[in-house]
Amino acid sequence: MAPQYAPSLRSRLPLVAFLLETIFILLFVFFVKIEQHESDSKLFIRSYAEFQDIHVMIFMGFGFLATFLVRYGFSGSGFNMLLAAMAVQWAVLMNGFLLPQRHRREIHISMKSVIEAELCAASALVAMGAVHGKTNPVQLLLMALVEVTGFVINQWILRTLLRADPLYSIMMLHIFGALFGVMVSWVLHREGINPKHEKEKIDRSTGLFAMFGTLFLWMFWPSFNSALVSHRWERELKLTVIYGTYLSLAVSVVMAMSVSMLTSSKGKMNMVHIQSSALSGGVAIGVAMTAVHAPWIAMVIGFCAALLSALGFQYMKDHMLFAFECHDTCSVLNVHAIPGILGWFAHLFIRLASNEGTIAVRFAVYHICVLLITVCMSLVIGTATGLFLKLSFWRPQQDSKCFDDQAFWEFPNLVVHK
Amino acid sequence: MAPQYAPSLRSRLPLVAFLLETIFILLFVFFVKIEQHESDSKLFIRSYAEFQDIHVMIFMGFGFLATFLVRYGFSGSGFNMLLAAMAVQWAVLMNGFLLPQRHRREIHISMKSVIEAELCAASALVAMGAVHGKTNPVQLLLMALVEVTGFVINQWILRTLLRADPLYSIMMLHIFGALFGVMVSWVLHREGINPKHEKEKIDRSTGLFAMFGTLFLWMFWPSFNSALVSHRWERELKLTVIYGTYLSLAVSVVMAMSVSMLTSSKGKMNMVHIQSSALSGGVAIGVAMTAVHAPWIAMVIGFCAALLSALGFQYMKDHMLFAFECHDTCSVLNVHAIPGILGWFAHLFIRLASNEGTIAVRFAVYHICVLLITVCMSLVIGTATGLFLKLSFWRPQQDSKCFDDQAFWEFPNLVVHK
Amino acid sequence: MAPQYAPSLRSRLPLVAFLLETIFILLFVFFVKIEQHESDSKLFIRSYAEFQDIHVMIFMGFGFLATFLVRYGFSGSGFNMLLAAMAVQWAVLMNGFLLPQRHRREIHISMKSVIEAELCAASALVAMGAVHGKTNPVQLLLMALVEVTGFVINQWILRTLLRADPLYSIMMLHIFGALFGVMVSWVLHREGINPKHEKEKIDRSTGLFAMFGTLFLWMFWPSFNSALVSHRWERELKLTVIYGTYLSLAVSVVMAMSVSMLTSSKGKMNMVHIQSSALSGGVAIGVAMTAVHAPWIAMVIGFCAALLSALGFQYMKDHMLFAFECHDTCSVLNVHAIPGILGWFAHLFIRLASNEGTIAVRFAVYHICVLLITVCMSLVIGTATGLFLKLSFWRPQQDSKCFDDQAFWEFPNLVVHK
Repeated sequence: MAPQYAPSLRSRLPLVAFLLETIFILLFVFFVKIEQHESDSKLFIRSYAEFQDIHVMIFMGFGFLATFLVRYGFSGSGFNMLLAAMAVQWAVLMNGFLLPQRHRREIHISMKSVIEAELCAASALVAMGAVHGKTNPVQLLLMALVEVTGFVINQWILRTLLRADPLYSIMMLHIFGALFGVMVSWVLHREGINPKHEKEKIDRSTGLFAMFGTLFLWMFWPSFNSALVSHRWERELKLTVIYGTYLSLAVSVVMAMSVSMLTSSKGKMNMVHIQSSALSGGVAIGVAMTAVHAPWIAMVIGFCAALLSALGFQYMKDHMLFAFECHDTCSVLNVHAIPGILGWFAHLFIRLASNEGTIAVRFAVYHICVLLITVCMSLVIGTATGLFLKLSFWRPQQDSKCFDDQAFWEFPNLVVHK
Repeated sequence: MAPQYAPSLRSRLPLVAFLLETIFILLFVFFVKIEQHESDSKLFIRSYAEFQDIHVMIFMGFGFLATFLVRYGFSGSGFNMLLAAMAVQWAVLMNGFLLPQRHRREIHISMKSVIEAELCAASALVAMGAVHGKTNPVQLLLMALVEVTGFVINQWILRTLLRADPLYSIMMLHIFGALFGVMVSWVLHREGINPKHEKEKIDRSTGLFAMFGTLFLWMFWPSFNSALVSHRWERELKLTVIYGTYLSLAVSVVMAMSVSMLTSSKGKMNMVHIQSSALSGGVAIGVAMTAVHAPWIAMVIGFCAALLSALGFQYMKDHMLFAFECHDTCSVLNVHAIPGILGWFAHLFIRLASNEGTIAVRFAVYHICVLLITVCMSLVIGTATGLFLKLSFWRPQQDSKCFDDQAFWEFPNLVVHK
Repeated sequence: MAPQYAPSLRSRLPLVAFLLETIFILLFVFFVKIEQHESDSKLFIRSYAEFQDIHVMIFMGFGFLATFLVRYGFSGSGFNMLLAAMAVQWAVLMNGFLLPQRHRREIHISMKSVIEAELCAASALVAMGAVHGKTNPVQLLLMALVEVTGFVINQWILRTLLRADPLYSIMMLHIFGALFGVMVSWVLHREGINPKHEKEKIDRSTGLFAMFGTLFLWMFWPSFNSALVSHRWERELKLTVIYGTYLSLAVSVVMAMSVSMLTSSKGKMNMVHIQSSALSGGVAIGVAMTAVHAPWIAMVIGFCAALLSALGFQYMKDHMLFAFECHDTCSVLNVHAIPGILGWFAHLFIRLASNEGTIAVRFAVYHICVLLITVCMSLVIGTATGLFLKLSFWRPQQDSKCFDDQAFWEFPNLVVHK
């Protein structure tokens, strides 16, 4: 007979977290200092505001977007906070060790390094979306740290081998994170949640909590895309990115709702589809942004991204499950990977249209290499991570305890003494 | 026998939204460019922060304030997002075509133009409050676009004929939006929701979700009122507006709670009244702000606004329904129109007190004209819009499906396959 | 037989609030002006952004953190808004009268004065945490105003007698507020809620609403600690405080979750413990911040603060109740007082380690005096306030109406007419 309770993580999570946190603090002791020469006070003010917008997106936006499942709200927001807090610390270290803003063997914390660390954490949170509800927090924690490591290495390869623009290489976070997460989810596939787990649904409250996260992501996305564009040296690009992201997102909301209603047999909208697809415009424009120069191009990209994403959510999610046995809880494939690749295509076409002959060909080859390397890295590392996390040593919960807070959280009806 | 389901909008909403969005994108192709000469980087930083505060108010504040009804949360926040996203795009175009910041037949997007567009969207969202829960999204969408058009035309008249200050003319948004909405609601009156619809109430969760929206509106209102005051040329006014709005709102919270408890027979507070009346101080001070020069005047205005608004909510809302057959779901008349007119009176009296003779009379005449034109425009356009939306072509839901998400949203208990 | 309903406050709260508000407005008429010479436009921009972060923390953060009880959400967020709005107005006046930024018998409102007023309000809200759910709004209102008065007097003593740094004296707010609140709660102890009140628990929704408040506090804490550090004169300190608070909070989240799981017999996490303990790193670093110069020290302080706080929540809260008859609803002793004192010790040790001989001894004596004065003041004023609030004139609710919104709020099932 199956055990009644989910396996206790008392001997796993605290140990792993204590250990990692101690290692992080020791690494900070020896390698990390605070950068005291932020170039200029005005830029610090600007960066701090952008940093906070991103900070809100990572902790509030992703955290509450993950509360949509009817019985998994505590885990959604709680584990998001745990993972992001760990991932940020690790990303500061990894970025400092591998990427070039390092000073004489020391890592200097600055607004730029913290913003980059939060973007790396975002990439881990995207990956988490694919396995949402089907793994325990120890697995999530290890997965997040491996994902950040893989993503930073991928950036290092792109920047060192292909001399890619740092801005462009970091915007691969959506594609990398989504494919990584999908591979982990594919390896960890559970037969028991097929065809549809009874707890994998929303209700009135959780739908609104998730709307909340969606709105924070949606509202602050212009800062997310533009934060690493220098206000001093690339002012024109910065304005273009801000207004472009804003308009692209405005169009994708309208399209997400229209497509959701159009594809429903009863003519009703689906809250989960809308929440996710409304964001696809921001993903697509993020990858394409350095090439977009007119507001209407951004709007067209938002239009297509939401169209593809909403159709994908409606038709492809179930297909993925039945055909490939790959269950993708938040449908990150349709929300991050496909709009990301759409943005990549848009980038390519705009550049090809504005260049000629040899330059165009060289750009195309370079551009294709960037995508191919990112895709390969994410698939390989994702598969390896999945295999590692499949070990029963990590005490995954039973199928019936998936999508359920009871496995990890004390609930008051269980502890009231009276 | 009445049909069991609300009429499907599958053939209406997607079509209307696709069509409008395509027209918007085409207009953007030909007319809209990004302004690359924002006067100065420091001002851009400042404006971007203010823009984001307003952005949060429009999408998060209004969106969650609209979730207060027990079964209408998805529609409240979802339709708010759809409407606001469409209204902003349309307002950028309308403002660009009619109002003078246009360059050689081109519209240049800048922080100023986006902030103005969001304020126009706010005006449409105020109007939406009056018909909240009694119209379907197609009707709301058309209503929002007409409202924005009317409001921009009203601004154009005030600025061209009366040479009104742009700042003053845009703050008429509360009065214009509220009266417009009330007229639409009056024309669309449904006998079936009389005396009180069973779903027109709050519960513990929706009350807190609405508190959320209230707080975002309340906290960021100083930015809402001061965003269009130039930091460079009108610094003194800017500081006065920020601190004045802050103090006015602090007083109106206290008054809203006191009056709500005082007018209740059991000595209990009413969450809905408090949430709305706490904001009335911000509305009133917005209309009066260019004349207010001392903190205590702002506090007195906040005091009176909350008093009137809370009394109005308690006694006038039902009276409006029984006497005039005009049902005003969010009581926008008491929250936006009456405090707005109070602010207008305060503005008038302060100016009369500080001027003498001819100047005072001329100011009074001009000031009265501004109000009269705005009121007439809003009443006329509102009535016309109501008549247009009454067409059964738009497939309004049945009375029993009012205030109910089931009419427009898929719910999981209907879609679970297991 | 006990009365069925909670006593009506209709004759108390509106009267007290009207009266106080009128007095405040009169004081504003005679003493308060708006400061028109904010030193510099760039600093104003910076201060306004920080002010808004703190504004969000006070009204949204504390307000929603207080919604965790299953039947006390309306009161939690509503009373928080009322109290904070009153406390801010009163703190502007008290700070202006007692503390030296006063100009020729006038109080000038500036960003600095508003930020200080909000920090004083924070201190009152911390105190409110200890009596949360067990007092009515009139008692809370009076308690908040006395607390602010006491805290400002304490600051005045520290600054005048001990020439303490204003920054350091204001960060005593956590220790002062928490001990004040605990004393009030001890004096007002109700036998009837022993051993555990049936309504003192969370559910799925309120846990997420509280998560919300937690996250806003957590995300914006770097602004809370650094807002009063001058960007111009103490830039190095400002950066250290921002990054230090950020890292300290990141570590304390990880530790709070680990300890919560480790100390639970079933290996499950407790949402309430995590929400509170995750913030303890910010409290501790706030008190220690002027002495912390390396990121890893901040991380170690966050580590220890969360450890102590989570252990205290698990083991000390019940002990306090049984041994001392002191019920501390939000466990502010473990969340604010103990991490605050830990930060105080950290401050002391770091200073002692970096100085020698006489200087070290003098610093230690001064440092100990600051703590002793603050602790004594808070205990004495807290006890006196408790005795004053114990008068039955204030109509406290019955024990069975504790932790229950029904006592103060209209609910729709009671007012529906149909």
